[in-house]
Amino acid sequence: MELQFLGTGAGMPSKERNTTAIVLNMLEERGTMWLFDCGEATQHRILHTPIKPRKIDKIFITHLHGDHIFGLPGLLGSRSFLGGTEPLTIYGPAGIREWVETTIRLSGTHLTYPLHIEEVDEGIVFDDEQFTVRAAWLSHVIPCLGYRIEQKPIAGALQVEKARALGIPKGPLLGQLKRGEDVTLPNGQVVRSADVVLPPKDGATLTILGDTKYCKAAILLAQHADLVVHEATFDAETTHLAAQYGHATNIEAARVAQEAGAKHLILTHISARFVGEQVTKLQQQAASVFAQTYIAHDFAAYRLHDGNVTILTK
Amino acid sequence: MELQFLGTGAGMPSKERNTTAIVLNMLEERGTMWLFDCGEATQHRILHTPIKPRKIDKIFITHLHGDHIFGLPGLLGSRSFLGGTEPLTIYGPAGIREWVETTIRLSGTHLTYPLHIEEVDEGIVFDDEQFTVRAAWLSHVIPCLGYRIEQKPIAGALQVEKARALGIPKGPLLGQLKRGEDVTLPNGQVVRSADVVLPPKDGATLTILGDTKYCKAAILLAQHADLVVHEATFDAETTHLAAQYGHATNIEAARVAQEAGAKHLILTHISARFVGEQVTKLQQQAASVFAQTYIAHDFAAYRLHDGNVTILTK
Repeated sequence: MELQFLGTGAGMPSKERNTTAIVLNMLEERGTMWLFDCGEATQHRILHTPIKPRKIDKIFITHLHGDHIFGLPGLLGSRSFLGGTEPLTIYGPAGIREWVETTIRLSGTHLTYPLHIEEVDEGIVFDDEQFTVRAAWLSHVIPCLGYRIEQKPIAGALQVEKARALGIPKGPLLGQLKRGEDVTLPNGQVVRSADVVLPPKDGATLTILGDTKYCKAAILLAQHADLVVHEATFDAETTHLAAQYGHATNIEAARVAQEAGAKHLILTHISARFVGEQVTKLQQQAASVFAQTYIAHDFAAYRLHDGNVTILTK
Repeated sequence: MELQFLGTGAGMPSKERNTTAIVLNMLEERGTMWLFDCGEATQHRILHTPIKPRKIDKIFITHLHGDHIFGLPGLLGSRSFLGGTEPLTIYGPAGIREWVETTIRLSGTHLTYPLHIEEVDEGIVFDDEQFTVRAAWLSHVIPCLGYRIEQKPIAGALQVEKARALGIPKGPLLGQLKRGEDVTLPNGQVVRSADVVLPPKDGATLTILGDTKYCKAAILLAQHADLVVHEATFDAETTHLAAQYGHATNIEAARVAQEAGAKHLILTHISARFVGEQVTKLQQQAASVFAQTYIAHDFAAYRLHDGNVTILTK
């Protein structure tokens, strides 16, 4: 799976950073993409990527501040214009339904697909055979959620050559072995699934947090995660502002990742006051607390595979 | 005054054209700017201009389709972030108040200035000593207004050298003459205002229309206007689509300007289907009906002075 940042700024857009939106590309895993937050002009950012809005089937909203939701109605409308017919579900705190429904009604927006809106609370907000998504309340000036996305164990690959060598014919027996069932060949020989199927692999765990002060809920959501996305609106010198506005510093974000025993940290929601060398410094300060720290920029993309993170963009 | 197009596309943003927003820069005339419609990412476009959101004191909305309003909440919030304290008034069709107020409430948007919202109908929607703004209903798939902005006659300049030659001392007598009053000098000589003050000049008349089919209301609003801004979503070959979706073709827009006896026409709200040479063709076809036709592109700016139009951008 790949995580791409479409907006990494705080509060309002700047020339360098748009307001928040993060795409979790799971085309390989499930043929769809999930979006986390949707600041104004997210659909404009998408125009400069290969992302197709109709491929986005879930949008998780962390909180209702404008820099996290004002791009939502436009994206919903364009998803229709661009031929979307598959259902879309929006998850978010109370109020998101009233806003989206009021906006659609008053703007005469015509949707060509079923739209579901689920106002969610702490706990499991989505679960299927592949993924579980849990939410928890963070500590911001308005109700704000963090999300933990847990991929379930990934079935091991069938070793076809090995199966053939053991005399398994093409056909349904291969399927049974792949599903974990042992089979008996016509000659009475028993072939165990474990002999020809690799052991299951751990799925990825990814934590995407909304705006928040340093808080315990963030640490719990990030527990042993492969990758944590944490806001870092401020730095050590502006810690007083972070506390005042319900935000975190780069150091506090690094402490969350470190105390959670997470593997990698990406900082986003960077104040426009930090540019150039100052952004490098933000990264270095955070890395002194938690070594595997990255700072996102708009369009930055990361590949998450087997617990490792590869940067796909410079 | 100057008119700058921040978005000239139709329906949804493309890489070339954003959704609708037009700035009427009247810094010279009244120290402020007016905005007509505010599609998503209007504030992002503004980042690439010298426009200061706090200088915008009136926003006229033509209709509630998303491509004309979805940038409004973000701009309102950023106007606060950027230090706006002067009042702002939004004019628009019924529903604009509910949408803006619901959005501000649910998103926790904090405004540092008084916001007035006036839901308007046909007739005079604004009038002061300098300008009158009239609205009329056009013909679209939802209620949609066109606006006619009439500048009142501009007082002529006082010819200071001539006044001095006639023996007028510096001081209040000059002010009286400028205001149109004749004055009597201490020596009994009468100086008429008309002798030292140039005659008043006609103010500009500008018509900015929302989305519409070819309609009589548009022609009335554009009557003898110096400049008309008309949508041209389609061309002659796609006339059937224009009728179906409540839009106009380039030819129909040109007919409106021609039948109104207007002086200049700018086409905007151009469908993304037209690019490159096709845009040139749109202009040429329209110009065969109404010679003084321009086609706007994003950031295109025009200066309107003494009934003439100068293109400020290529």
